[in-house]
Amino acid sequence: KMQKISDLETPALVVYKHIVAANCKRMYDLANSHGVILKPHFKTSKCLEVAIMLSGGTKRGIEVSTLAEADFLAKNGFDDIIYAFPLSSHKITRCAALSEQLEKFTVFVDDPLIIQQLDKYKLKDKKWSILVEVDVGGSRSGVQADSPLLLNLVEEIKKSDNLTFAGLYSHCGQSYGCTNQREINEVARAATTTLLSVVERLKTKGINCPSYGIGSTPSCSRPVPEMSKLTEWHPGNYVFNDQMQVRIGSCKEEDIACFVLTRVVSHYNKKGDIYMIINCGWTALSLHGGGDCGGRSPNSGFGFIQGHPELKLSQMSQEHGIVRSSDQLKELDLSRYPIGSLLRVYPDHSCGTCAMHSTFYVADQNDVIIDEWTPVKGW
Amino acid sequence: KMQKISDLETPALVVYKHIVAANCKRMYDLANSHGVILKPHFKTSKCLEVAIMLSGGTKRGIEVSTLAEADFLAKNGFDDIIYAFPLSSHKITRCAALSEQLEKFTVFVDDPLIIQQLDKYKLKDKKWSILVEVDVGGSRSGVQADSPLLLNLVEEIKKSDNLTFAGLYSHCGQSYGCTNQREINEVARAATTTLLSVVERLKTKGINCPSYGIGSTPSCSRPVPEMSKLTEWHPGNYVFNDQMQVRIGSCKEEDIACFVLTRVVSHYNKKGDIYMIINCGWTALSLHGGGDCGGRSPNSGFGFIQGHPELKLSQMSQEHGIVRSSDQLKELDLSRYPIGSLLRVYPDHSCGTCAMHSTFYVADQNDVIIDEWTPVKGW
Repeated sequence: KMQKISDLETPALVVYKHIVAANCKRMYDLANSHGVILKPHFKTSKCLEVAIMLSGGTKRGIEVSTLAEADFLAKNGFDDIIYAFPLSSHKITRCAALSEQLEKFTVFVDDPLIIQQLDKYKLKDKKWSILVEVDVGGSRSGVQADSPLLLNLVEEIKKSDNLTFAGLYSHCGQSYGCTNQREINEVARAATTTLLSVVERLKTKGINCPSYGIGSTPSCSRPVPEMSKLTEWHPGNYVFNDQMQVRIGSCKEEDIACFVLTRVVSHYNKKGDIYMIINCGWTALSLHGGGDCGGRSPNSGFGFIQGHPELKLSQMSQEHGIVRSSDQLKELDLSRYPIGSLLRVYPDHSCGTCAMHSTFYVADQNDVIIDEWTPVKGW
Repeated sequence: KMQKISDLETPALVVYKHIVAANCKRMYDLANSHGVILKPHFKTSKCLEVAIMLSGGTKRGIEVSTLAEADFLAKNGFDDIIYAFPLSSHKITRCAALSEQLEKFTVFVDDPLIIQQLDKYKLKDKKWSILVEVDVGGSRSGVQADSPLLLNLVEEIKKSDNLTFAGLYSHCGQSYGCTNQREINEVARAATTTLLSVVERLKTKGINCPSYGIGSTPSCSRPVPEMSKLTEWHPGNYVFNDQMQVRIGSCKEEDIACFVLTRVVSHYNKKGDIYMIINCGWTALSLHGGGDCGGRSPNSGFGFIQGHPELKLSQMSQEHGIVRSSDQLKELDLSRYPIGSLLRVYPDHSCGTCAMHSTFYVADQNDVIIDEWTPVKGW
């Protein structure tokens, strides 16, 4: 018997496969048309089926945020995997195993201490493949572009018989602080220009940079022409998109591929405070968008309820979601949302919402459930 | 070979079993000494081993926030389970199955429509057991104490041959908005008094209230004498506690049973901005405490780094945690925290942090790993 979205137990994480496929194709074609290789990030979905789509069916060239993701993909026939997190001493053994198991496994290093440790750790019949992360303004990991440390690091790698300099990588995280397309373009242009200048500087020192790329869904979704001078792009969130991407201008609402299916559970009018409870608490949505992640984005709300701009998910506890009128001057007409009504909460940050679920219910464009995906968890 | 906490892959959720046991015993004894039955909430840990400790080994009288938890506990020999979330139409079938499977399964109803639906849904050889949730100020689910709807609801239940009125329930959620012991006592006293007045009012109508209780870790941890007039208490978070409970005054720092084990991954000094990255991102800690959950608690920070008041976890992305000096006037001395150093991040909200993990690493007081617990997930 065919199961439809409306048959699902709630809350449930639903993914529209055709939208995922369209998002993957769009970015893949965009990268191709700019003459760059796409090395997308796996961390938004952590699902095998999505990784295959992200790689254009090649099962090659995927970035991961954890070694659990790397092990999982390696086990499922993937190669050319990039561990996009600063490598530190206690992860070296696991990375060595992956390097030996795969044809190509690349690590990030932004500290000379780790270069020294890798230099001493001989792999069987191959060299470590190392990307140096450059901070082009994101102020997280990575070496600052104008720092002498950057050249030192690359020279240390080149000196060693045991290490291969694979190139430069940069996350364009500051694009998430932008509020419109023009700002994103400026950030992307500045990041690209900075990275290219580092490539030039290395060239003058006789050092060839095999690859150099930036990534973030905002910059890669609406690329500036300069970005075709890079060798690769590595965005990740675009596979599902979310309210944040729509707000920034990376995509349209219809490009968001995942949502939380929820039901109206009860109605309340408490001395004029009119609200309803839905069974979408933070266990189903996460608290992303609700406040300050420590500087990354303004308090934009946890998500939006599709088709109901008059509703606002104002508060959540573990299992309860409290929905009020989005306009304080307009009273909510609860009779429009009978108990049991289905609502679709689109997340502010799909990476955060997906992380709350152990099963993704996959639907086609007729709302028929065609698959269940299981994201890999842990580290 | 004995594994110690320091041998764990990071990040990892670590639980000190002896602290959990002490927390369980303390609350169990406190309830006993006040002549009330403890009906603790399962939702903080969602682990079988903890449920057994919470129930004092009886496997009886546990509250759950989802039917997945109820099914899990029922499968593991528990009975007298309370589904502490407003029952709505689409969950009735599953609740019927649990009611028939168990000796006692109790649901919450705060809407007459649901009463009517339950009245029509005949169980095999038993009646539905129903608690009515009373809003004593928490402004979430529940019927307001002074509303005529409350009496209507109870009378509807009493009228039916198919339903048993099990009593009144109230969550004391507003205690989380308190900032000190005195405020909590006031809130607890007001909540208790309000609930008892409802019990009295029902009595004048000839309706006996078999059970009536309030719950929240802040109120139950330092109970006011009036709370001994209730029949039960149902706190939950105390099993692990967290920074929020310490701040409110429910417990001391040494009563927090869980933390995220993490390592220093890299050091940065970017033109005077000195920070380090740890491998504790929001996938390991959640974003609880970082901002506004929609009114529940002030921006208190994501957690604290044990033994290091000079450090502050200021920002997180998916896998990166950015640690800065907690005192803007004092520069961080990165040499004190060599790359690879272990740190312990204690969560602001243990329920939120635990929800991010599929495995809890259980340690004894000598930091030896003695067990692994698996929380139940889903709905």
